[in-house]
Amino acid sequence: MQPLPATAAAVPGSGSAFEFDVATSVTTLAEGRFTGEIQAGWDIGGNANGGYVLALACRALREVSGKPDPVTVTAHYLAPGPPGPVEITTQVVKIGKRFSTVSGSVVKDGRPMLQLLGAFGDQTGGTAERLHQAGGPPELPPLDECAPRNAMNGMVAVPLMERIDVRLHPDDAGFQDGVRNGRGEVRGWFAFADGRPIDTLGLLLAADGLPPAVFNLDLPQGWVPTVELTVHVRGVPAPGPVRCRFTTRFVQGDSFEEDGEVWDSQGRLVALSRQLALIARG
Amino acid sequence: MQPLPATAAAVPGSGSAFEFDVATSVTTLAEGRFTGEIQAGWDIGGNANGGYVLALACRALREVSGKPDPVTVTAHYLAPGPPGPVEITTQVVKIGKRFSTVSGSVVKDGRPMLQLLGAFGDQTGGTAERLHQAGGPPELPPLDECAPRNAMNGMVAVPLMERIDVRLHPDDAGFQDGVRNGRGEVRGWFAFADGRPIDTLGLLLAADGLPPAVFNLDLPQGWVPTVELTVHVRGVPAPGPVRCRFTTRFVQGDSFEEDGEVWDSQGRLVALSRQLALIARG
Repeated sequence: MQPLPATAAAVPGSGSAFEFDVATSVTTLAEGRFTGEIQAGWDIGGNANGGYVLALACRALREVSGKPDPVTVTAHYLAPGPPGPVEITTQVVKIGKRFSTVSGSVVKDGRPMLQLLGAFGDQTGGTAERLHQAGGPPELPPLDECAPRNAMNGMVAVPLMERIDVRLHPDDAGFQDGVRNGRGEVRGWFAFADGRPIDTLGLLLAADGLPPAVFNLDLPQGWVPTVELTVHVRGVPAPGPVRCRFTTRFVQGDSFEEDGEVWDSQGRLVALSRQLALIARG
Repeated sequence: MQPLPATAAAVPGSGSAFEFDVATSVTTLAEGRFTGEIQAGWDIGGNANGGYVLALACRALREVSGKPDPVTVTAHYLAPGPPGPVEITTQVVKIGKRFSTVSGSVVKDGRPMLQLLGAFGDQTGGTAERLHQAGGPPELPPLDECAPRNAMNGMVAVPLMERIDVRLHPDDAGFQDGVRNGRGEVRGWFAFADGRPIDTLGLLLAADGLPPAVFNLDLPQGWVPTVELTVHVRGVPAPGPVRCRFTTRFVQGDSFEEDGEVWDSQGRLVALSRQLALIARG
């Protein structure tokens, strides 16, 4: 964890100048209503990363939930997200002792962009007692032997990769140079580029932070719009980068699922994700 | 497909007297508002099955979506569901050309019971072109060599099992007599007891229709409340029973995920499900 930069005061009240905290900050407009901003630099080819927008929205939902952590959050993606201000409206469904349930919407330029439903709670200690574990973290070479995500020969600009430090398993990274491994799998390390610790909000970004696993299949490559993304946060990550595994088993018609696992530095599962997405139209 | 019984007229306007259609019928109260009824007989120990309540609610959501099939639906379970009338309120988020997004809530006796968010579309032909398939349907003995779900030595009443015809893989059914297989897996056939064809609404029931996979682990057995269930409908099933596989890989603290696959008689994947649930407290 690096010391806070001197510009911490730039985010009123947040006490943090880590890029992710600045880019997901929200301001209360009225009870349950917030403004935020999709910041430039968290995009892939001009459209904000789905995990980033999810985290931005969940800052607001989490606040009204009164609980510290997302437990299971679902977002439906209704429109792409170029940079600019957004309004986030939340509705408390139920404040429970253990879980609080909140729905919400993100509107940009008057159009619905994201619709959300989430349960929030306290995930501290969620990974403490592992009663059953079938499978473990992906085996990854050390960080410096993995492959940074690149711009795929200039095919697409990925400014997001300056915000996060993603290192791919060498066996899964060849697609960046046109060599697909034929398995619908992408494994790699995930961390924030500026050393921000990965908390449960950061896991929402990690859950959509690697290149799509379908890029390793013999299919048209391009923008793969997410229809819906659900993330189960299973625990608070221990310090350090997390290891991720994303797999796509079934591509039918033009739709596919991508399943994700996020593991912390102690070898504990901290998030499971699944999204329904569409393959690029050739 | 059996011929419609003579009592079809008992469900005004539905044209069907199959039990599932009767038990999920909803009546419009006002624009976007419906009444329905949690019918007795779809429960496990007095509480309605989560897939049944999801299907009941999605009858209303589907109606306002103007589309024939659920594509991806998420439900948060806020309270148990004994039989009785419910009110379902829907809000259209977006009517799109391909997908329409609707949120909704089920209120029973003045208390929130279920909160939903779903996308609806036309899934006809969704399974037509299989571009990538890693994995296949579970290998199951013929129906009559599988084990019907029983009442687990009278431990719990499962009236639901008179509505649906579930036949478990013999290797996964021993838990019913106290012999757990130690793998977090339950595989089996699913059909409606009265021969109703399994459409995409029926898949929502199938996605929660088998006994929990955790019953095959050495953990306390009892009610395993669902926190959240998401179902991706990937295609319209071909006629005949479907084959299901449910697995739980990670039980941490008292929470676990259960992942489901539903395969039709043509060997096509027609649904993927995932739920976050809690293990019984000793």
